[in-house]
Amino acid sequence: MRSDGRSPDQLRPLSIEPGFLAFADGSVLISLGRTRVICAATVEEKVPPWMRGRGSGWVTAEYAMLPQATPERNQREAVKGKLGGRTHEIQRLIGRALRAVVDLDKLGERSVVVDCDVIGADGGTRTASITGAWVALNLALRRHFDPEKKSAWPIVGQIAAVSVGIVGGTPVLDLPYDEDSTAEVDMNVAMTDAGGFVELQGTAEREPFSRAHLDALLGLADAGIRELFAAQRAALDRA
Amino acid sequence: MRSDGRSPDQLRPLSIEPGFLAFADGSVLISLGRTRVICAATVEEKVPPWMRGRGSGWVTAEYAMLPQATPERNQREAVKGKLGGRTHEIQRLIGRALRAVVDLDKLGERSVVVDCDVIGADGGTRTASITGAWVALNLALRRHFDPEKKSAWPIVGQIAAVSVGIVGGTPVLDLPYDEDSTAEVDMNVAMTDAGGFVELQGTAEREPFSRAHLDALLGLADAGIRELFAAQRAALDRA
Amino acid sequence: MRSDGRSPDQLRPLSIEPGFLAFADGSVLISLGRTRVICAATVEEKVPPWMRGRGSGWVTAEYAMLPQATPERNQREAVKGKLGGRTHEIQRLIGRALRAVVDLDKLGERSVVVDCDVIGADGGTRTASITGAWVALNLALRRHFDPEKKSAWPIVGQIAAVSVGIVGGTPVLDLPYDEDSTAEVDMNVAMTDAGGFVELQGTAEREPFSRAHLDALLGLADAGIRELFAAQRAALDRA
Amino acid sequence: MRSDGRSPDQLRPLSIEPGFLAFADGSVLISLGRTRVICAATVEEKVPPWMRGRGSGWVTAEYAMLPQATPERNQREAVKGKLGGRTHEIQRLIGRALRAVVDLDKLGERSVVVDCDVIGADGGTRTASITGAWVALNLALRRHFDPEKKSAWPIVGQIAAVSVGIVGGTPVLDLPYDEDSTAEVDMNVAMTDAGGFVELQGTAEREPFSRAHLDALLGLADAGIRELFAAQRAALDRA
Amino acid sequence: MRSDGRSPDQLRPLSIEPGFLAFADGSVLISLGRTRVICAATVEEKVPPWMRGRGSGWVTAEYAMLPQATPERNQREAVKGKLGGRTHEIQRLIGRALRAVVDLDKLGERSVVVDCDVIGADGGTRTASITGAWVALNLALRRHFDPEKKSAWPIVGQIAAVSVGIVGGTPVLDLPYDEDSTAEVDMNVAMTDAGGFVELQGTAEREPFSRAHLDALLGLADAGIRELFAAQRAALDRA
Amino acid sequence: MRSDGRSPDQLRPLSIEPGFLAFADGSVLISLGRTRVICAATVEEKVPPWMRGRGSGWVTAEYAMLPQATPERNQREAVKGKLGGRTHEIQRLIGRALRAVVDLDKLGERSVVVDCDVIGADGGTRTASITGAWVALNLALRRHFDPEKKSAWPIVGQIAAVSVGIVGGTPVLDLPYDEDSTAEVDMNVAMTDAGGFVELQGTAEREPFSRAHLDALLGLADAGIRELFAAQRAALDRA
Repeated sequence: MRSDGRSPDQLRPLSIEPGFLAFADGSVLISLGRTRVICAATVEEKVPPWMRGRGSGWVTAEYAMLPQATPERNQREAVKGKLGGRTHEIQRLIGRALRAVVDLDKLGERSVVVDCDVIGADGGTRTASITGAWVALNLALRRHFDPEKKSAWPIVGQIAAVSVGIVGGTPVLDLPYDEDSTAEVDMNVAMTDAGGFVELQGTAEREPFSRAHLDALLGLADAGIRELFAAQRAALDRA
Repeated sequence: MRSDGRSPDQLRPLSIEPGFLAFADGSVLISLGRTRVICAATVEEKVPPWMRGRGSGWVTAEYAMLPQATPERNQREAVKGKLGGRTHEIQRLIGRALRAVVDLDKLGERSVVVDCDVIGADGGTRTASITGAWVALNLALRRHFDPEKKSAWPIVGQIAAVSVGIVGGTPVLDLPYDEDSTAEVDMNVAMTDAGGFVELQGTAEREPFSRAHLDALLGLADAGIRELFAAQRAALDRA
Repeated sequence: MRSDGRSPDQLRPLSIEPGFLAFADGSVLISLGRTRVICAATVEEKVPPWMRGRGSGWVTAEYAMLPQATPERNQREAVKGKLGGRTHEIQRLIGRALRAVVDLDKLGERSVVVDCDVIGADGGTRTASITGAWVALNLALRRHFDPEKKSAWPIVGQIAAVSVGIVGGTPVLDLPYDEDSTAEVDMNVAMTDAGGFVELQGTAEREPFSRAHLDALLGLADAGIRELFAAQRAALDRA
Repeated sequence: MRSDGRSPDQLRPLSIEPGFLAFADGSVLISLGRTRVICAATVEEKVPPWMRGRGSGWVTAEYAMLPQATPERNQREAVKGKLGGRTHEIQRLIGRALRAVVDLDKLGERSVVVDCDVIGADGGTRTASITGAWVALNLALRRHFDPEKKSAWPIVGQIAAVSVGIVGGTPVLDLPYDEDSTAEVDMNVAMTDAGGFVELQGTAEREPFSRAHLDALLGLADAGIRELFAAQRAALDRA
Repeated sequence: MRSDGRSPDQLRPLSIEPGFLAFADGSVLISLGRTRVICAATVEEKVPPWMRGRGSGWVTAEYAMLPQATPERNQREAVKGKLGGRTHEIQRLIGRALRAVVDLDKLGERSVVVDCDVIGADGGTRTASITGAWVALNLALRRHFDPEKKSAWPIVGQIAAVSVGIVGGTPVLDLPYDEDSTAEVDMNVAMTDAGGFVELQGTAEREPFSRAHLDALLGLADAGIRELFAAQRAALDRA
Repeated sequence: MRSDGRSPDQLRPLSIEPGFLAFADGSVLISLGRTRVICAATVEEKVPPWMRGRGSGWVTAEYAMLPQATPERNQREAVKGKLGGRTHEIQRLIGRALRAVVDLDKLGERSVVVDCDVIGADGGTRTASITGAWVALNLALRRHFDPEKKSAWPIVGQIAAVSVGIVGGTPVLDLPYDEDSTAEVDMNVAMTDAGGFVELQGTAEREPFSRAHLDALLGLADAGIRELFAAQRAALDRA
């Protein structure tokens, strides 16, 4: 039994609320238990300098946390004057994951920036960001493309992500902070609806893990991500 | 008639939702039309170095905007690597306003940090921040002090703020962005429930203003702030 | 009686020395008692990127303090690696005040940068900067425009500024540092020679202030600024 | 057949030269083809502030590249004024990998800093850094601990890392830059001599990958890492 | 004949005005033609961390230029966010030169910071800074030590500096900017009143220079510096 | 007798190994005893903005030290977020020295960047950098120009540099760190093969130095630099 009463293969209570920000092209508030992230996507009619003239687009992400999203107030990176290593790592991860399901040529010379701002941080903020960002990306692109015109619609797949880990010897799905901080192994998995892996990042925090453990974790992730796919589609239908 | 149909002396639709963040000591989401600010207060058991050993406390504020809080996405200050002049000015203003109604000696050697994170920016974000911050400050201090013990309770007054300005020759209350950007005069007023001014910042954006105009603006502000006081108290009662 | 023997409505000894810097287009050394500021203006044949192509100009200000302008040596902002909040706030104020009396269309696509470098800081440096900057601005523009050709001369009014405050219950004019640091209310007022307000920034440092106090302070400021106007004109005549 | 004539399961020519820097506690120059990294380890008699007083130690890594380590000269991060996202990500990875095989309690209140400075960058610099860093770490700790006293020797396992990927549909080992830049999947694997995974970071650069692909890649990595283990031990024997 | 009518061995008009800043421990305004520098010295009752506990002191210098000290306005280093290479080089030079004539043990655990702020830059600002800084240093130390008590007075020699160079084939003394910018050789010389060199920095800007040229330049510098010594002493007598 | 057994006029063991980096246009590893510097030159088809359109080129240098190049690990400047004063000073020196022997017009609108990365720091790193950089510069330019076509070859002279100093009253050549840190006088000399001085930087670290000392130091430098010239030519012949 886990500290919050869930079974090992159970997600936390999940909601995806579309249209959370009044001014963004597309936005959601995604909640997984007390982990809450505002994901907002905006389409810009330009690409980074190194991409100009290719007729192709780009998708990038930024990630930040409100100072009071955590039990201990964390200092703003704007006050520190620079982005930390963890932030860099996470926003590169989110960007790569989204680009895996976007046909950049169909975007044309446009960029989509997806901002993931965490307002509640109870573990799994990077995977929740990917899951929410995919919905925000869809909402934003609907303003520029018609999703019914399949051949021109730039989103070529569905992507969602979840954390899995080994806690006290047991493989578990969707770790809140208290589990995450004591886990032996911590893994983030991003998958597409076609069943392929896009990102697989496993770290042995306390002791190396075996192939058998790896297999168990990938099984849990696969099932959890299918539930996330359903919630993403439901949110898009509601929007 | 104003662009959104209000009369010159009318506030935008106002709500103050307490407890918006799960982990902050005290927090609210304040909305004035499409202007929305998350205000969160945390009490820390330390003071800035220059205050140590005096037995007295401090209240400070930080202000930021989500990149997609505005119609045009604005760049994160953490990405720029520094806080801009406008941010500095606003957070100094919010901090001063709150300290005007706090008895710092009663705080003891504690700091309260109030974070004001704008998620919708349609004019008046700094005044909405002050109004919301006062509620968050109350909620946070309730965890450390008993508001019923009047002699020890550190908050000695109520403070709220509003913008007023002259638009097309007419003094108006609570300017949204479209009015603000064309106003001849822009003024922010922070007042206490005892009727005194704490901050008065008037700027002639297009042409100097007279004593008569000043009097009219102060009258509008006074009435608007009384409505804000009532909403603050109602939010505290609900929390 | 004030600590330096002045009456409540009396300015400190005032001088404005034109041509203080050999290489600037226009410059002055303004002294108000021990508060001394070098104001220097230069016209540049370019405008900020966001103004290009409009045929209109811009006026901006920078403010700094020598490390040893204060009794306690203050650290250089260049050494800290960034401008502080106070500096940002002051240079935005000076720029706004000057733009209020300049017809930016008449400037054409030119910028004027006014540097205000404090070499003695005994209170009122921001208001002395505005007063001195207006003279430096005139001197610099004389090199590019003929002040006799009224229709083309870009300066459309005279502006000066002064601090007022309430010290020990008494409204006083032009506060030196020792009064400023104990004042109940501190207010900066910038006015044009036509009698209108351009900036009004009042802060209750110790206790909120009433309408009656506001009226008294504005009266003092008005009289003091008239003396500053006379000194500005005399400096221009001498140059 | 690969562009450099290797078979899919073959490492590039490998050498580990101990004692490369005159002044470091322990250092090597590791070469895998044209990828060359100077790894240097130093023991410091202090720990980060958040670890003080626990009697336990820490291992951390820094990673950089000479500007002319790459065919196109890359700008120094010291000139840019900040570390990029990729650098942060890599040095966090190296540090985590090393800590997985160090008993931090046995270190006592000491830190080991391992600097990985790339002088030739032809793909796989982060994995070569881990492999070389483990040898440098051993050399440095030999100055403070006796490796023969097993119970006190802080290194509890051997770790090495390698890149694997899918290029043109074929799983391959140890990708040089030209393969890496066109690979469909790129994966870094760090393993211990006990056969467990410490880090597993797979990214679908061009298309998602299946479980079958994952299995093939892990097989290649496992065999390659065994060769690296042998070279590490040989370098230690020579030193 | 030089552009300003001087003979090759003649200094520009020289003045050293003591007590220029109201609040500094010791200050001067030194002028050499249009080159003008405010030098201000302050004694602080602390030393840098690496010197603590030795009972010895330190002397350091900072150097800056007002934006409008030059014919073309130069950008503030505080705005750029960092000190440039030239600034670092100059302030290290000034500090070293002053320390050469101070007995740091006699200072005790105190630091003297000398700020050299250029308000007119017409060549030779670094050498004028050294010459003025020595006077400011004396004035500041007089507040803490009695110059009549020779055995305890920390200043053990007099130092001054001047620029020399080869312009159009002729060795000349004290180059203004127009000569400096076309000189074949540029040299800065700092000497003590005992006749020894403290700093000698010669750079061939256009072509290498011979021993004969070096001898001629050192002769000019020696004579010029003797005049500077006299002016320094006269300023101290006046103060 | 010196601590390492050399006579006062003897260089440390010297080697210049061409082609040290696989990817640079031209590179060497220069060693003078334990002082070792990787010098790498790259030609870029562009010039700094202020030089554009003149048909002339530029040569610039960057200097850095590996953290573990010194007995005490030194912090990376990329981690500090800025280049220190010493770094700025050295890279300006190296750049000036190289430009003294390059005909910038013959370069055309091209830049050469020479990176000097110190991997062993035992005194004299800046002079070793100049000596090695000249060889790297030749190697890089050979890829773009034919050294046999004298009229078009941009390098018009040979330059090398060495340190000299006075240690315990004796003038000595090529100081290692232990001598350098106790020297009374420290001087860096850069000369061309035509016998002229390009840079002469002498600093009295402990006491001022006389003309006689200066003469002795210049004699030592002259002889040492002739040996360096021979080694440079030999390295070029080998390459």
